[in-house]
Amino acid sequence: MSNYPKLKLTYFPVEVRAATTRLAFYIGGVPFVDERLDHDTFTANKPTYPFGQVPVLEVDGHVFAQSQAMLRYAGRLAKLYPTNDPLAALKIDEILNGIEELNEKMVPAFREQDPEKKKQLRLDLANDTIPRYLSIIESRLKTHEKYAVLQTKDVHISDIAIYAWVKSLRAGYIDHIPTTVADGYPLVEASFQKVANHPKSWSGMPSSTLCQSSS
Amino acid sequence: MSNYPKLKLTYFPVEVRAATTRLAFYIGGVPFVDERLDHDTFTANKPTYPFGQVPVLEVDGHVFAQSQAMLRYAGRLAKLYPTNDPLAALKIDEILNGIEELNEKMVPAFREQDPEKKKQLRLDLANDTIPRYLSIIESRLKTHEKYAVLQTKDVHISDIAIYAWVKSLRAGYIDHIPTTVADGYPLVEASFQKVANHPKSWSGMPSSTLCQSSS
Repeated sequence: MSNYPKLKLTYFPVEVRAATTRLAFYIGGVPFVDERLDHDTFTANKPTYPFGQVPVLEVDGHVFAQSQAMLRYAGRLAKLYPTNDPLAALKIDEILNGIEELNEKMVPAFREQDPEKKKQLRLDLANDTIPRYLSIIESRLKTHEKYAVLQTKDVHISDIAIYAWVKSLRAGYIDHIPTTVADGYPLVEASFQKVANHPKSWSGMPSSTLCQSSS
Repeated sequence: MSNYPKLKLTYFPVEVRAATTRLAFYIGGVPFVDERLDHDTFTANKPTYPFGQVPVLEVDGHVFAQSQAMLRYAGRLAKLYPTNDPLAALKIDEILNGIEELNEKMVPAFREQDPEKKKQLRLDLANDTIPRYLSIIESRLKTHEKYAVLQTKDVHISDIAIYAWVKSLRAGYIDHIPTTVADGYPLVEASFQKVANHPKSWSGMPSSTLCQSSS
């Protein structure tokens, strides 16, 4: 009946690295099993994951890793990532990789153990790095919106990446980074709202299957 | 005459972050201007680059950034990245993102200023992290080679990424990481050789245009 392969997305019961793939499948109406792991099950299954980490995506019984690869695959199946328009795909990929680049720059501010150094790294992110990347993405969206394919009300995987990014910045779980840091960027906000207000967005998602250890 | 847009790839006169896009265009027979910048020209032009950094790719006069986005775009134009086969693209993307993940893990070993700490970080890379990623990529290639599209002698952008990665590991420019670290992985080696021995590979590339500051 379905033309889609049999899909199962496996991750912890949080958003973070699986949120974008999950949303792409859901918004695109692609059926998938949304499996959530507890820590014991993860530890037991770890050797079977290609990179020893989650999220993983099972496609007709074959397991794949790498969240950005999974998001692009979901985007292709869900028709949220134009496969026959290299220039539109370039514009989308530039946004995805730009956000990933910022995420990598944030890693040291999470890893740092010294409280004073950690605070300084986070203040640098809040006052310089994050606003700089928000300004760049805003400016790129301004340039890209002239391109017909991207002018529509349709959601693309770049909108989903922006939504997940802005949502995490507003969640308030990173000390010293104000929840208002992403406010005041109209096109970033428009991308965020396009996903937040989509009839098949997060709030409408069915609750997930929590896969618990049988031990 | 040409169906391709007018393309100009701009980077410093080194390989590093532009090597894969450059090779994809060259192997695919896609005409492009291979512009190399000296440092003064970079500084003068920096405000015009979308993320304030190079490489950048000009497409019919519009400037784009993000090396991974550029590689995928080059792969689409050069027919080295399947656009109508989501599963083949997933396999290719998983390899690309896996190598990028390792590259990010190598950053602290370059940034560390304390010589003893730097040495230890690099020994950890040489003895643990790099062999671990090489084993994973080897194992993923073993799984992927069963897939018809990827069984051919054709080069894909994942082979180009493996080539550039292994070439940099063998270049000997990273103290404490032996140049033999990537030896002994037969499928990684086969990908490397497929690109190294391609009639349009590196050694056959015409010398680049060095764009010098006019000041």
